[in-house]
Amino acid sequence: MRCEIVAIGTELLLGQIVDTNSSWMGGQLALAGIDSLYQTKVGDNLGRMVSTIQLALERSDAVIVCGGLGPTQDDITREAIAQVMGVSLIRHDHIGEHIRRLFESRGREFTQNNLRQADVPEGATTIAEMPGTAPGLVCPIEDKVIYAVPGVPYEMREMVLGTVIPDLQRRAGMTAVIRSRVLRTWGQSESGLAEMLAARIEVLDRTGLATLAFQASGVEGLKVRITAKAADALAADAIIAEEEQHVRDILGSYVFGIDEQTMESVVLDLLRERGWTLGVAESLTGGLVGARLAAIPGASEVFRGSVVAYSSEVKFDLLGVPEGPVVTEAAAKAMAEGARKYLKADVGLAVTGVAGPAEQEGQPVGTVYLGIAMPGISDARWARMPGDRNRIREYSVINLLNLLRRRVLTG
Amino acid sequence: MRCEIVAIGTELLLGQIVDTNSSWMGGQLALAGIDSLYQTKVGDNLGRMVSTIQLALERSDAVIVCGGLGPTQDDITREAIAQVMGVSLIRHDHIGEHIRRLFESRGREFTQNNLRQADVPEGATTIAEMPGTAPGLVCPIEDKVIYAVPGVPYEMREMVLGTVIPDLQRRAGMTAVIRSRVLRTWGQSESGLAEMLAARIEVLDRTGLATLAFQASGVEGLKVRITAKAADALAADAIIAEEEQHVRDILGSYVFGIDEQTMESVVLDLLRERGWTLGVAESLTGGLVGARLAAIPGASEVFRGSVVAYSSEVKFDLLGVPEGPVVTEAAAKAMAEGARKYLKADVGLAVTGVAGPAEQEGQPVGTVYLGIAMPGISDARWARMPGDRNRIREYSVINLLNLLRRRVLTG
Repeated sequence: MRCEIVAIGTELLLGQIVDTNSSWMGGQLALAGIDSLYQTKVGDNLGRMVSTIQLALERSDAVIVCGGLGPTQDDITREAIAQVMGVSLIRHDHIGEHIRRLFESRGREFTQNNLRQADVPEGATTIAEMPGTAPGLVCPIEDKVIYAVPGVPYEMREMVLGTVIPDLQRRAGMTAVIRSRVLRTWGQSESGLAEMLAARIEVLDRTGLATLAFQASGVEGLKVRITAKAADALAADAIIAEEEQHVRDILGSYVFGIDEQTMESVVLDLLRERGWTLGVAESLTGGLVGARLAAIPGASEVFRGSVVAYSSEVKFDLLGVPEGPVVTEAAAKAMAEGARKYLKADVGLAVTGVAGPAEQEGQPVGTVYLGIAMPGISDARWARMPGDRNRIREYSVINLLNLLRRRVLTG
Repeated sequence: MRCEIVAIGTELLLGQIVDTNSSWMGGQLALAGIDSLYQTKVGDNLGRMVSTIQLALERSDAVIVCGGLGPTQDDITREAIAQVMGVSLIRHDHIGEHIRRLFESRGREFTQNNLRQADVPEGATTIAEMPGTAPGLVCPIEDKVIYAVPGVPYEMREMVLGTVIPDLQRRAGMTAVIRSRVLRTWGQSESGLAEMLAARIEVLDRTGLATLAFQASGVEGLKVRITAKAADALAADAIIAEEEQHVRDILGSYVFGIDEQTMESVVLDLLRERGWTLGVAESLTGGLVGARLAAIPGASEVFRGSVVAYSSEVKFDLLGVPEGPVVTEAAAKAMAEGARKYLKADVGLAVTGVAGPAEQEGQPVGTVYLGIAMPGISDARWARMPGDRNRIREYSVINLLNLLRRRVLTG
């Protein structure tokens, strides 16, 4: 089964918006075992949209058209698909009524233009999921199919996961279910992980039970994706659960979470379980540690606050760091203790260092000290972060949170 | 002149990498006055690459092929272009020698595979810019042309700006120079800006001197792009400078910067000019205000630090906010004054509010109070931010910085 993606929008060609939708859909199709060999961007032009969709339909079994389903005169995906199908658009009054009620319930003005979204090519059906005001479409053409989904990412995602991919799998006669889980790791290189898992991958190659794949995600660490195929979801999930245990046994605490978990959500969960609160003292990161923690709903149960001591005087005045050099192990320790004390938290974390562009206190750019203070522990460690100012800051944040994670886990 | 873009790489189709290169090239082509009507992604497959490039060359005058120029067996863009041209690949020994020296000078191991990068289709020339080890190619086919550039963004950019776009313009017989400048605005809607500038746009439509275009950039505000075409760069720059003055006269302080300036860089510059320092008290933003300021090199001259008072007790203890409700005008004022006092800064800024998901102190999600304290001024204002938790936080940051900007400018 081959499915192409056609992304609609002149703004995509002009580079005003990066087409992340096609990338996401490509990833989901791959996970579902469906090939996507071409992905095309085309502007809001009827003739070019029609010829692009036609070509895609010649080359593949299915086409997902993304974007151009809005209410304005620019939004002509419905017209283009109707032309490819050789049919007319039919206005569905019950959909129009539904859209009108949506607008009213959100207190937004409804205009006659919005009724264009109730136009459906003859022979097509609408997608059940409709998180916005644009219905998605399933448009069969002989034994092939065109799907139309909105360009708004969350609307597109809900429709692709809820209707498009299951429908593609049904059409492909796929009775097998493919499931996957991502194990998120920090602290080991890709070649290091590959070496640790080499023997296990050999076993899997032989048995064909599941596959392991590595995926770099920059400052967020490396992902190990476990994928399994089985007769039903229950069986696939069982294979994945067993394989996850094998991988965890091998990688140990390099694994910090799964799927959508982040380092900060994991750290907050660990502290919440123990009923501990957290205070942070930040220097070169300027507030990034706190900002990432506070991005997680419910952070307030754990995260009390930060002192962003960007200037040395603030370190001395508000955190009680002894006057002197501030890019040192001693300063990192004192900052962590100060955060713990003045923010009245169970655990204090601190980061101080040189983000660049210039060196500081004779220390090269990238030098960072991470500090941690918790009952019975007052510790600091040196690290050298790679990259430019931004990467140094980002790496400092995740290394600091990872230090806390490992300390909490090992007691 | 029409130029298509073909991005090469199975990893692009699988969504492992988002194709930002095509977006960037699309933007540059548009600025140079060259149409790009289709952009296609295709995997590392010779047959599909050849047919995709052929189709692009039928529809357009030129094609930029991006990616697949590396040294491994997967990198077959050279082969695909040679096949489209109907010629052989010829190994250029002097390029091979150049690549070998590059490897030696960087202390990297040179293998025979790397010599594949010295293969050039008969009749093609290499691009002068070569920041990496992969030469770019200019491959004429009758009166049309295929360019090949590497997928590594900085290598691609240097070649596109240095050779591809000038060559396209020469082929199109463009003797005119096109220049543009972006004015960045905050605080007015797109329709509001359009209304304010309507009369000016009418004048420009009549005279054809320059064009104005709007571009939304989400929480970073709206951009107004001025583009001018003239016989040479000097003349184009003069038109732009004059038009910038017209637009600034009309939009006033909605304009906060130009081109690569950000709200935080502008605010830091304004304070630096006055010799003022800044302290911040943050609640729902968790440290984002400080993080954005500290991202700018040289921020330390101005930015002293923040107190991230995520829990109410930290507001009372470290910022001297009177005990009581904290999502209020009075609390925002007290936080700003506390930031100014305890961080020993000339200016104090504060933000408190409800990021959600739940309401707080009976105030709905999105309620935010912004506070400012500076000599002779102690003020706070209410705002209602739209969107989810993240957008509320991001909007709060830029609104707070914009409040400071306007206060500093009006004295």
